[in-house]
Amino acid sequence: MQAKLRPEPPSGTLGLENLHAAAQTEPPRVTRRGRAFRQAQAPVVVSPRKRKIPAYALLGEAALSAIEDQADWILQNTGVEFLGDKTALELFAAAGATVRQDRVKFEPGLARRLCATAPARFQLHGRDPANTVTLGGRNVVLMPGYGSPFVSDLQTGRRYATLKDFHNFVKLTFMSPWLHHSGGTVCEPTDVPVNKRHLDMVLAHLTLSSKPFMGGVTSPARAQDSIDLARLVFGARFMEKNAVMQGNINVNSPLVFDDTMSGALRVYAAANQCVCVSPSIFAGAMGPLSPAAVAAQTLAEGMVGIALAQLVRPGCPVVFGSFHSTMNLKSGALTFGSCESNLVTMALSQLGRRLGVPVRSGGGQITAATAPDGQAMQDSTGAMWATLLSGAHQVWHAAGWLEGGLVMSYEKFIMDLDHCGAMMTMLQGFGTESEDFGRDAYQEAGPGQNFLSTRHTLRHFATANYQPDIPEAGPFETWVENGGQTSERRATGCWKQMLADYQPPPMDGTVRANLTEFIKDRKASMPDEWY
Amino acid sequence: MQAKLRPEPPSGTLGLENLHAAAQTEPPRVTRRGRAFRQAQAPVVVSPRKRKIPAYALLGEAALSAIEDQADWILQNTGVEFLGDKTALELFAAAGATVRQDRVKFEPGLARRLCATAPARFQLHGRDPANTVTLGGRNVVLMPGYGSPFVSDLQTGRRYATLKDFHNFVKLTFMSPWLHHSGGTVCEPTDVPVNKRHLDMVLAHLTLSSKPFMGGVTSPARAQDSIDLARLVFGARFMEKNAVMQGNINVNSPLVFDDTMSGALRVYAAANQCVCVSPSIFAGAMGPLSPAAVAAQTLAEGMVGIALAQLVRPGCPVVFGSFHSTMNLKSGALTFGSCESNLVTMALSQLGRRLGVPVRSGGGQITAATAPDGQAMQDSTGAMWATLLSGAHQVWHAAGWLEGGLVMSYEKFIMDLDHCGAMMTMLQGFGTESEDFGRDAYQEAGPGQNFLSTRHTLRHFATANYQPDIPEAGPFETWVENGGQTSERRATGCWKQMLADYQPPPMDGTVRANLTEFIKDRKASMPDEWY
Repeated sequence: MQAKLRPEPPSGTLGLENLHAAAQTEPPRVTRRGRAFRQAQAPVVVSPRKRKIPAYALLGEAALSAIEDQADWILQNTGVEFLGDKTALELFAAAGATVRQDRVKFEPGLARRLCATAPARFQLHGRDPANTVTLGGRNVVLMPGYGSPFVSDLQTGRRYATLKDFHNFVKLTFMSPWLHHSGGTVCEPTDVPVNKRHLDMVLAHLTLSSKPFMGGVTSPARAQDSIDLARLVFGARFMEKNAVMQGNINVNSPLVFDDTMSGALRVYAAANQCVCVSPSIFAGAMGPLSPAAVAAQTLAEGMVGIALAQLVRPGCPVVFGSFHSTMNLKSGALTFGSCESNLVTMALSQLGRRLGVPVRSGGGQITAATAPDGQAMQDSTGAMWATLLSGAHQVWHAAGWLEGGLVMSYEKFIMDLDHCGAMMTMLQGFGTESEDFGRDAYQEAGPGQNFLSTRHTLRHFATANYQPDIPEAGPFETWVENGGQTSERRATGCWKQMLADYQPPPMDGTVRANLTEFIKDRKASMPDEWY
Repeated sequence: MQAKLRPEPPSGTLGLENLHAAAQTEPPRVTRRGRAFRQAQAPVVVSPRKRKIPAYALLGEAALSAIEDQADWILQNTGVEFLGDKTALELFAAAGATVRQDRVKFEPGLARRLCATAPARFQLHGRDPANTVTLGGRNVVLMPGYGSPFVSDLQTGRRYATLKDFHNFVKLTFMSPWLHHSGGTVCEPTDVPVNKRHLDMVLAHLTLSSKPFMGGVTSPARAQDSIDLARLVFGARFMEKNAVMQGNINVNSPLVFDDTMSGALRVYAAANQCVCVSPSIFAGAMGPLSPAAVAAQTLAEGMVGIALAQLVRPGCPVVFGSFHSTMNLKSGALTFGSCESNLVTMALSQLGRRLGVPVRSGGGQITAATAPDGQAMQDSTGAMWATLLSGAHQVWHAAGWLEGGLVMSYEKFIMDLDHCGAMMTMLQGFGTESEDFGRDAYQEAGPGQNFLSTRHTLRHFATANYQPDIPEAGPFETWVENGGQTSERRATGCWKQMLADYQPPPMDGTVRANLTEFIKDRKASMPDEWY
């Protein structure tokens, strides 16, 4: 790996020796490739964050309207339950919904109208302003995986995740130019008591990274702790007007919000921090099995969660999220990256844009594969295309996710990063200006001639192509001589090198002491809970 | 494998036992899945062949026009060389092009006008009419890899391809519902003399399969042999008006047609068989390195080849092909499935549609990886999305391609087929009719309840989801117990089972004897050549 991080000598094939010799008079350039970013002096340089190519429109107006009508039908006829959350029920009743016991029903159009105060676009501030991202518009925000109880790497195998693993993935995410956001529960630190994990996780995001992050959501009190910690860094006044963090509110699909989640939602909304509402539907189990039905139910559940956030605090930043997939209806196995769920992913990007809020895609680099093998990357790559081509704004699970989310894989993390870079580069499209056509090259090299030594090639070869970080296999014979390492094995050196190179972003000593003291007090205030 | 080809018993998870018990009263259905197709009585059932979802438009009018203008600029200022093909030069001169020595130049717009007689859409007839495909419009035709001198499988490793391997891949292609076309040189039968290979290859396509195919192109005489063999099966009169085969004419990019290729082109065009013109550009070597330049040069070279076919026989069926990729401009290694080449792939689908002819994509499931690993499938999957979402009509290299085309891999062939099925299923989109929303299911299962046993699920579970052929890994513990086989290892059983199950399509005994005699005579007429 070490050698691969430095410029490589000319290989002598295809006339490249001439190209490199001629290029020695050219000034060095900063390229947009991952490797080059890591060579740059500043430790944090973030890749392009906007798409320049158009979003793919899977569905036409008639299909979109039909799905929106079905979402309204669900909310009018079946409704949504808020279990044990009287405050939420009162807010909905006051807003014109029909509330009976825990069930809330909405006249057609009401839920959508209640979402209207949500901003179409807003910033999520990083501790380093250079890492502030925008959600909405043409912006794209990629994040690591979320929620895995296990981790794996090819040297030590699959094991329960620990706080050390959590730290490692926060560091790797911080170092990657292709991830714009530190994520949330990048893996479960299972060696920390359940009721205290959120404190260590938020501390890690705040100290080991300077990118935006997600806080705890597993109870309203943990949500409040997360916000209080962030206020020690960003200041309560700043956070009153600016979002620096997100809470991911999973719906207990079908059509249920339990008070843990709706309570956490209200805490984030009241604090003007970003609420991402993520209906969680396995087609056929938590809803009907057809893509149209999953899209409609996701929209229905998402609108209700967003409406609650807006009722708590009109104008607070929200994201229309989703987590949906399919299952093998014969074996019962959950499947990820399937063609049916990719269709739903593409439809939801459109539906979310029509709702007028940023979209967190249910796609990302997801798979049910047990190893970072061909299936893993086939599933992940397809799901990522569906996600990014359809115009999603935010992507959970863009790196590391394996085994249906049970595992964060160190090697797959690196393999996924390479593809994040490729996709972000692709989203930049290409130019069609005069220089992009290289007319002078045709005046130098005619039919049958080699363009490698043309001046046009020399002007652009250093920055022309995205280059992944995982070393090339090389010709077959070289590959065999080097041990016949498949791509996941070649990835091992990358994450080790990144962790070895990691440098934490600077933090004021007083701020750090305040964080430490807050956590010490909170931990001391309650006994450990392990479930 | 054997067991996996039969319906599986209920697994007992997630309430599936109820679903299966309840479903026993339902009649069996034929599904659209690969596995089910193979269970069906008829050996050849072909998957959907049309897209129902829209094609993605990467570029707007201004960018497309700029690229088309650049193609015209190349043809006006640099021109194209036809080496040693006086007939071609005379045809172009008579059509108004400027010819000096071997170089042909075109006034802006002339090449495009000469392409105007090409049909936008035509049929390519299979020996079995059920396997006839249409090129153009919303049709999609997938084919196996082309041209590999090596094959590999996980049991015997990487080795030179033989005629037996060629037969195997023709059989596997014939059996797959997801490949619509038998391909051409699916691998090089290196144990047959170079000057006689085309005879054995065409014989295999004509006898072991009943899907359309490609004939020899490595000399005009071999092209003529291929056509003569097909005439013994389809009849000369039928072929005078109908295409049953294609010749793939690779341009010697940059901007050169040698007389081998232009000669073969003229043979296919004169016989009214389909000519696919495939410029072959590695960005930076056979043309400038920028995507816009590669797209423009591909268009320029493609138009010239198509124009020649139309001058030989106006109205003859043609395809605008391409073979383009990128290289690591530091190491010189060729790269496939890169983000830059995916952009070119998407642009060329648009440019070809504007030219008004079917498009053979330069994408497909391509990779430079040396093994059917994560990199292989990441590259291949991304390239396939670019290819199919952008609306290409015909896809070479949809299965098996490895190591930059040096190798046809038996396992990757199966892995790619699974993805072909997923993509073809995805191209069908989804419905938004009443039944697709499952309203009755919400009346059975309310908030918090399981939809697995609803009548809507029972009506649709057997046909709801595409199911790949490679066995699922299963839960981690089961996977470990089963030997921890990564997906390529699980694919081995699939291709072996398919070859064991292969049944040749019927053929009239006289026809077969005529083919055999023709080949015997042709082989006897020339000494073996091994280079």
